[in-house]
Amino acid sequence: MSKYDSENIFAKILRNEVPSIRLYEDEETLSFMDIMPRSDGHCLVIPKTPCRNLLDARPEQLESAILTVQKLSRAVMRAFDATGVTVQQFNEAAGGQEVFHLHFHILPRYEGIGLRPPGNMVEKDFLHVQAEKIRAALE
Amino acid sequence: MSKYDSENIFAKILRNEVPSIRLYEDEETLSFMDIMPRSDGHCLVIPKTPCRNLLDARPEQLESAILTVQKLSRAVMRAFDATGVTVQQFNEAAGGQEVFHLHFHILPRYEGIGLRPPGNMVEKDFLHVQAEKIRAALE
Repeated sequence: MSKYDSENIFAKILRNEVPSIRLYEDEETLSFMDIMPRSDGHCLVIPKTPCRNLLDARPEQLESAILTVQKLSRAVMRAFDATGVTVQQFNEAAGGQEVFHLHFHILPRYEGIGLRPPGNMVEKDFLHVQAEKIRAALE
Repeated sequence: MSKYDSENIFAKILRNEVPSIRLYEDEETLSFMDIMPRSDGHCLVIPKTPCRNLLDARPEQLESAILTVQKLSRAVMRAFDATGVTVQQFNEAAGGQEVFHLHFHILPRYEGIGLRPPGNMVEKDFLHVQAEKIRAALE
């Protein structure tokens, strides 16, 4: 497994070198909107400290991340009247990983509606409206 | 969200009322082979105590489960010379959940090989051979 590269896009988001639509943060974790959402409300949870993925993460990084995944999963259910949530977590390129900083995908799901194909950006305005709903549901 | 149903198949596995091919267990968690593997080495991690999914889980259930997910992910990488791992976790029917006891899917991945379609059982002997390799890699 390769080493952590501190120039990955999520590291830059953490350092505010790249913009993101933030939803929630605590001491250990950050959540923000996925800019290529596969469902309405698709967001991400990452640890604030460096690790490549699940395989090299420290226990505290995993424990804090999964609690934030739960918090955001509950929030997106409320925000969008979703009827389910799919969580995905990819490790290494063969495992589907494209950004090499540990992250969990939270995909709100809706009865009878499949996931959209990956890789399609949407309008920022659309994401900002969704983010506002998620933030309100977190309160 | 519906209540926990203690007659779900994973509850029966935990009570040894239904057979399973066990890989690992500690005080809080159990891991066993998925009988409809979507990749070679596909296994599951569940808490030993009842909860329906991520949405109703207690923090301790999530924390212990994610650490066992890491342990098994590392083991399957070693056992099968996998080049990646995909973790999936489904909540409610719309989210892909079929058994209503919290579980994480650990899918070892191999360069250039997609996941097999869901829902296909394989020979038990085949699973036992794979389980032996994972157990050896855990040591």
